[in-house]
Amino acid sequence: MRDFTFYNPTRIEFGKGKELNIGQYVNEFGVGSVLILYGSERIKRDGLFERVTASLEAQGVVYESAGGIISNPLISQVREAIKSVKENKLKGIVAVGGGSVLDSAKAVAAGAKYDGNVWDFFDGKAMVKEAIPVFSVMTLAATGSEMNTGGVVTNDETRQKFAIMSPHLFPKVSVINPELMASVTPEYLAYSAVDIFAHCLDLYFTASHFPGYNAALIENILDTVIRTTNILLENPNDYDARGEFAWASTMALNGNTFVGVEGNTYDTHMIEHAMSALYNVPHGAGLAVVLPAWMKSIKNENSARFERFAKKVFGVDDADAGITRMTEWFSAIGAPVTFAQASLTVDAVEPIAANAFGNAQLWGMDKMYPQERIAGILKLAVK
Amino acid sequence: MRDFTFYNPTRIEFGKGKELNIGQYVNEFGVGSVLILYGSERIKRDGLFERVTASLEAQGVVYESAGGIISNPLISQVREAIKSVKENKLKGIVAVGGGSVLDSAKAVAAGAKYDGNVWDFFDGKAMVKEAIPVFSVMTLAATGSEMNTGGVVTNDETRQKFAIMSPHLFPKVSVINPELMASVTPEYLAYSAVDIFAHCLDLYFTASHFPGYNAALIENILDTVIRTTNILLENPNDYDARGEFAWASTMALNGNTFVGVEGNTYDTHMIEHAMSALYNVPHGAGLAVVLPAWMKSIKNENSARFERFAKKVFGVDDADAGITRMTEWFSAIGAPVTFAQASLTVDAVEPIAANAFGNAQLWGMDKMYPQERIAGILKLAVK
Repeated sequence: MRDFTFYNPTRIEFGKGKELNIGQYVNEFGVGSVLILYGSERIKRDGLFERVTASLEAQGVVYESAGGIISNPLISQVREAIKSVKENKLKGIVAVGGGSVLDSAKAVAAGAKYDGNVWDFFDGKAMVKEAIPVFSVMTLAATGSEMNTGGVVTNDETRQKFAIMSPHLFPKVSVINPELMASVTPEYLAYSAVDIFAHCLDLYFTASHFPGYNAALIENILDTVIRTTNILLENPNDYDARGEFAWASTMALNGNTFVGVEGNTYDTHMIEHAMSALYNVPHGAGLAVVLPAWMKSIKNENSARFERFAKKVFGVDDADAGITRMTEWFSAIGAPVTFAQASLTVDAVEPIAANAFGNAQLWGMDKMYPQERIAGILKLAVK
Repeated sequence: MRDFTFYNPTRIEFGKGKELNIGQYVNEFGVGSVLILYGSERIKRDGLFERVTASLEAQGVVYESAGGIISNPLISQVREAIKSVKENKLKGIVAVGGGSVLDSAKAVAAGAKYDGNVWDFFDGKAMVKEAIPVFSVMTLAATGSEMNTGGVVTNDETRQKFAIMSPHLFPKVSVINPELMASVTPEYLAYSAVDIFAHCLDLYFTASHFPGYNAALIENILDTVIRTTNILLENPNDYDARGEFAWASTMALNGNTFVGVEGNTYDTHMIEHAMSALYNVPHGAGLAVVLPAWMKSIKNENSARFERFAKKVFGVDDADAGITRMTEWFSAIGAPVTFAQASLTVDAVEPIAANAFGNAQLWGMDKMYPQERIAGILKLAVK
């Protein structure tokens, strides 16, 4: 066990109808005005927007709203929202949506207290020193953003998909109501499952020091994701499966899997962010393409762990069979596992590799991942 | 998944030498004076007390100290400590020790802000409305108190072993340095292992709604405890094993195992607290006697879960074999599994059952556990 600090003060309010209390949660923190940030207008048609605003109104919390946040969210939208927060002197943000909305909300929260360019937090020019409080009502489980300090946003001018991260960005309260997730499309459910896989496996296969407890925790999360995804594709309204899936996604990136480990890196995310940034591939779809290729490329460096993965997660005996089973499962649930399936051609390999190498430089991984190595991994996925 | 709120703001500082920063941690919370609460004087001989006080002094934190807190800590000692805090107008508490010291510190923290009788918080006459901040430097891993809201103290006049519980009692920062635990005796290591087992199994075998994720989390904790205890009995200085053991103990009672479950009760704790209260049996030793007997008494009510336990934790095929293996393992590591081994006679059965029934009444479990049923379970352990 290596030294660590574990600290996660986000309160999770999990269960049916918990969004009806959002006004009360906001009020508890003394926040009297908020920006409601959301994605598609569907939340207005299905009544969620109204339930949230009614709850805020009942507590005397005034609000503005800004919608249209897209998957692979853009810094231009974040800038617009910051403007609204500053102009209206709003004291907090309520994100209603999935990881893209909440990630954007975190950037807005930091930008609201900053006079410079909000992108400074992403490219390392500035550190977040304060932020207005963020609350969330989640409609998709995948990114783990509801209980961590990070957010990922794409710069539409530079085509860089970078991350903001700060303890000031823990959501104060996140609402997880599995019923709000029942309408997620099968496609996005599959992408979400793969995203959780990638959060787990980037760690599982890269950590140089990796306690047995952590390994088994990750295997439990993956097993939960497989089991519940299979149920949900049959029956999208299975409340318990939806709930366990959501909690597995939260646990995969709220700090628990990282305690006491050393040497872990975010290899598939480093590569995939380039795909999304350049070709607007859904994050989970891109990961489904990258993950098997990356695993094939490193399996001989850490064969004991690959054998353990094969055995514990897919019940097969050797490393290759484990990767094959995982890839087959991705396909079975509807995630693309080749460039072609993700509507990419071989011509995309070099641009993605070049963009990903930029990520590698920013993340201090450039020695380990020269551009040619990244291109080599991508070629394994072209097929 | 049933509705739940998850909230745990305790910061864990884990690793070698982290106690050297305790002054800084206290200072971060604006606390300028503390009571150092501890158990035996050994921490003065081995230098820990001096390292803690030097760290406090370097930050300008003034302190008083109070030692002598015993295993199965007493409310009379808590009262003394509250007096010292009030007289010296101390603003926080640093607990240096194991669960008994920290549990006492939590009671002192609540009592310091209360004009009435501190026992009111234990017998349900009053709710904790505020408390002074608690910090801890742990020297024993077992109770999970370092990252939760609870504390258990015995009333030396009434021989009641009751619990205090409040969100105000989360430690602000807990230091877990596995090196400080290397001198725990093999006997107390075994008792600690059993305590963690009981925290897990009270939940595992009583929850009426129990998600698969939670079951596997508990199996992981138990597996970690077995694996690391076996290593530590051979080599008490194995740092990684000591660290994983400590983290397993924290995870067993910091809320993670309870998310989304329903219907769980604290059966073995309800019974064991009576043993400790009346006969001053070490808590873990008492649990080692109660746990196998209790499991035998309920195994037919929930046979699927007993079979799962047998298979996942001990690799055997039927429920009885699982209980037998667990009991054998308790014996092998040096925990008593019968009344005789715990220096109790059959004459203790009725007094323990009567006292435990008092706990059952306080915890709302008296319909489920009439005194005769408790006596029946205890008799299974007399042998």
